[in-house]
Amino acid sequence: MSEQLFSYQQLFVFTKRILQKIGCSEKDAELAAKVLLSADLRGVDSHGVARLSGYVRLWEVKRINTVPGIKILHETPSTAVVDGDSGLGLVVAPHAMKVAIEKAKQVGTGWVSVQNSNHFGIAGYHAMMALEHDMIGIALTNASPLVAPTFSVERLLGTNPICVVIPAGEEPPFVGDMATTTAANGKLEILQRKNGVAPPGWIQNKQGHSSTNPHELKAGGALLPLGGDKEHGSHKGYILGSVVDIFSAVLSGANYGPWVPPFPAYVPMPEEQPGKGIGHFFGAMRIDAFRPAAEFKKHMDKWIRRFRSAKTVEGQARVIIPGDPEREMENLRIKNGIPLLTPVVEDLKFLAEKFDLQLEIK
Amino acid sequence: MSEQLFSYQQLFVFTKRILQKIGCSEKDAELAAKVLLSADLRGVDSHGVARLSGYVRLWEVKRINTVPGIKILHETPSTAVVDGDSGLGLVVAPHAMKVAIEKAKQVGTGWVSVQNSNHFGIAGYHAMMALEHDMIGIALTNASPLVAPTFSVERLLGTNPICVVIPAGEEPPFVGDMATTTAANGKLEILQRKNGVAPPGWIQNKQGHSSTNPHELKAGGALLPLGGDKEHGSHKGYILGSVVDIFSAVLSGANYGPWVPPFPAYVPMPEEQPGKGIGHFFGAMRIDAFRPAAEFKKHMDKWIRRFRSAKTVEGQARVIIPGDPEREMENLRIKNGIPLLTPVVEDLKFLAEKFDLQLEIK
Repeated sequence: MSEQLFSYQQLFVFTKRILQKIGCSEKDAELAAKVLLSADLRGVDSHGVARLSGYVRLWEVKRINTVPGIKILHETPSTAVVDGDSGLGLVVAPHAMKVAIEKAKQVGTGWVSVQNSNHFGIAGYHAMMALEHDMIGIALTNASPLVAPTFSVERLLGTNPICVVIPAGEEPPFVGDMATTTAANGKLEILQRKNGVAPPGWIQNKQGHSSTNPHELKAGGALLPLGGDKEHGSHKGYILGSVVDIFSAVLSGANYGPWVPPFPAYVPMPEEQPGKGIGHFFGAMRIDAFRPAAEFKKHMDKWIRRFRSAKTVEGQARVIIPGDPEREMENLRIKNGIPLLTPVVEDLKFLAEKFDLQLEIK
Repeated sequence: MSEQLFSYQQLFVFTKRILQKIGCSEKDAELAAKVLLSADLRGVDSHGVARLSGYVRLWEVKRINTVPGIKILHETPSTAVVDGDSGLGLVVAPHAMKVAIEKAKQVGTGWVSVQNSNHFGIAGYHAMMALEHDMIGIALTNASPLVAPTFSVERLLGTNPICVVIPAGEEPPFVGDMATTTAANGKLEILQRKNGVAPPGWIQNKQGHSSTNPHELKAGGALLPLGGDKEHGSHKGYILGSVVDIFSAVLSGANYGPWVPPFPAYVPMPEEQPGKGIGHFFGAMRIDAFRPAAEFKKHMDKWIRRFRSAKTVEGQARVIIPGDPEREMENLRIKNGIPLLTPVVEDLKFLAEKFDLQLEIK
């Protein structure tokens, strides 16, 4: 499939303007554009500007409020529940993460559960906000149901990612950002476009049998929890996805399990809504609430260097430290530009026309 | 392999007396016996009384101090680092979890990283201490290196479990307790005894190739992170095991990665020791630091009932809620007794003789 190259700055200005057109303040539009494009820079193309038109459609059906009154519903010295007021998750999430960081400054750690939000882009952006404060950052979110728990034919969980970010000293930080499924939905979408074959353990068909046909997902099948099947530990991926769901939504009062609202605006909302919007969960832990930050970072450097220099399986250059590939991609794309697939470019052109804006190619 | 049945009470009294013989106070011996036997009751036979002689041998080589001065090295309102003073992990861990719970009572959550400890039994016992306080409980521990990160032939991580326990209302609690590997080491030990075949994705041989021979683990091979291989998400199991290692040991000042001390006393200690002993990490989050506990529990009941009643794959009775199998096992074993394999019984008889005690069969 052909691609076109755009500079970060082009896409940033375009995204910001579109978001202003749908009612965001300049400040919110800049923040949301920055969060959204961090996905494109880091190579998580499924969560970046490819979703911009999806956010616009959610605004059109009044599921996104571009002037939200984000507020704290309840708090203790180390916790808070934030109501996102149906705002863009791209704006609500950094707001909530800031609350977690402020609490960590005061009492060592901060933990914030969020209700009434929407898709927040990549978890990594929010968790990485902790780094400049010498804190460990954690970001979780639930998402609409695509995943069948072990033994279920029904989809009851989202791909519910877990992101944990840990600062180091001279080495770059540890950035573990993972869906709790065997494969992220974005990887399956690539196979669907190519009519490719999915490895066993990624999906099941509508009878709950393992399948290698990526189109089965849209024919009543489901993504599988990390592990794939019981023999390979899928009950563990199911535990992880469940914990993300409960921390993000049952703690906050958002929708959970099969009742999480879908991202595509054309998919009908679940008939029942036990909570409000989708849920997130954020954590910040001050390193020096445990031991002096310099001492910790010295040991993190030692940890990272030992793992990176481990003897590898033949044919592999090195053991990868979580965060390495995304950081390398970001450096490349800042320099060379961001490649977008033709359907994504068409989508952006459609938005440009709709809102009377220009989309220039690099 | 033949088995003999013992009552919980018999094994409790026996374990307590052995621990008193090696110098534990009556109170510590009772606590440690309770923690150790909670594994046997819950069906995690690899972590229960089968390990008693192993703890005794660690005491003999002076790696376990049975009269530890457990102390807090550093703290903030929501965090602490605890020095276990080389005590039994079975005693150090409940102590540290109590610190987390007390902090949660004060400021909403409590987070405790522990250095200078030893094997703590099952993570589930410690995390479940939170339940009676209407808190979410979290317990992590690192362990000696058996696991190769993705692309590594070297073992750099332990099976590093994650346990998250969440209270419900009328339903039993959610108890997710999982090694961050495809299969726990205990499952492999069963296959080794039987000369069985391991499913692909559980282990690799010393060249780093997938193997189905369970004996390869002791011939330079390694357990694999949850996922098994890169295509099936092993980099995610590697992220999880790494986070457990870092939270438990780099935050606390314990040993990490390949430098974690081995459980068997006859295995030489790593030449280098960047920290002290092994490390744990505990968390407690007060439910009502987020929303009223009764409201939360009502929604947890709804969550659990929806998942448990999901339509299943043909041939499966129901979708299992994490914690169901262990709770059912505990009920059975309290009623009918705990079956121990002959080698475990022989081991206990050896201890009985050594310390001039009686081991009576039910």
